[in-house]
Amino acid sequence: MKAVLILSGGLDSTTLLYKLLADGYLVDALTFNYGQKHKKEIDCAIAITSRLDVPHQIIDLSTLAAFLGESALLGKKEVPSCHYTEEAARQTVVPNRNMIMLSVAAGYAEAHEITELFYAAHKNDQTIYPDCRPEFVEALKPAIRLGTAWNPVELQAPFVHMTKADIVRMGLKLQVPYELTWSCYKGKAMPCRTCPTCIEREEAFALCGCRDPLIGMDSH
Amino acid sequence: MKAVLILSGGLDSTTLLYKLLADGYLVDALTFNYGQKHKKEIDCAIAITSRLDVPHQIIDLSTLAAFLGESALLGKKEVPSCHYTEEAARQTVVPNRNMIMLSVAAGYAEAHEITELFYAAHKNDQTIYPDCRPEFVEALKPAIRLGTAWNPVELQAPFVHMTKADIVRMGLKLQVPYELTWSCYKGKAMPCRTCPTCIEREEAFALCGCRDPLIGMDSH
Repeated sequence: MKAVLILSGGLDSTTLLYKLLADGYLVDALTFNYGQKHKKEIDCAIAITSRLDVPHQIIDLSTLAAFLGESALLGKKEVPSCHYTEEAARQTVVPNRNMIMLSVAAGYAEAHEITELFYAAHKNDQTIYPDCRPEFVEALKPAIRLGTAWNPVELQAPFVHMTKADIVRMGLKLQVPYELTWSCYKGKAMPCRTCPTCIEREEAFALCGCRDPLIGMDSH
Repeated sequence: MKAVLILSGGLDSTTLLYKLLADGYLVDALTFNYGQKHKKEIDCAIAITSRLDVPHQIIDLSTLAAFLGESALLGKKEVPSCHYTEEAARQTVVPNRNMIMLSVAAGYAEAHEITELFYAAHKNDQTIYPDCRPEFVEALKPAIRLGTAWNPVELQAPFVHMTKADIVRMGLKLQVPYELTWSCYKGKAMPCRTCPTCIEREEAFALCGCRDPLIGMDSH
């Protein structure tokens, strides 16, 4: 079985990569440069796919940043330092980002006659990011299937009803090397531990009764 | 009323631009460079929007051509010289192309708080291009609406049940300067009159009892 996976280099999509490999899929991983401020996640995606010897394409859509408004992930606006409150997190929305990446990935899958397309949308992101919600996934499925009708592609989002803690729990069993993944929006040498995604990540590990290895490295 | 329009510089989307302006819309036109072999359509889109003083963005997605397979519109494969038979025309399919452009345009619309997004899919293209079919449009509408939930965008494809001849008939009434538009896949100085889209365009004008001004220019 072949599958295309959108791999950011973060915790969620890396866990999904390990899950798909454990399930016997041959995975083509796609990583998007959509003009995000730092490239640490992309470097992580490269390190992970190299370690696993998984085919990996980096698709440069960085020209889009100029057309998608003022997200704190793209432009001059500062990344907020607080928990995922609605107001803070909304500043990190890149309009329709996941649909853009999924459309390209579906085209790639169709061109390469790969029938399954995976992405790691999960429950925690759904308050803020509309393109992580189950109703979006359900609506996009038939659109992708119909748009790729010469070689129909099926969208799969197996984590859509799981929390980040559920994902970490699965990943620990799969021995995902979380020290190779990156989540922090700020892209400094170590996670800032104050931006929304850092706080969420740390909480997910705490809920699993353990510590993020990236933070462990920080304290030693 | 504001609208975003995907404008290729071809006959269909140019007619839609004139229709929207006649209906009182303020239009932001987006033209995509998706790595197509020639840039004549893009030059036409620039000429048309300059004449009309319509805001116009050219979005460079040319990096995608390397990931979307072997379409005759992108790569080394030759553009077929015959009518739109299934076999010939299938070579001109760029996998999921319209969905990719619509996803980006929806992100642009959401970022700019524009609630309507138009594209000029029409009936003639539906045998060959899945992402021009009414069922694709109907499936994509809720996906776009849900994916852009912070500023919901509504997809509109008003030509989806019209033939190319219907579009030309409308455009002639709107005095669309068809000599500024370009359809031919080959991108030489004048239309080749043998590729599928040239044949279709010439037939559409013939069905309206007149001649394509581009062809008229050729014969004088």
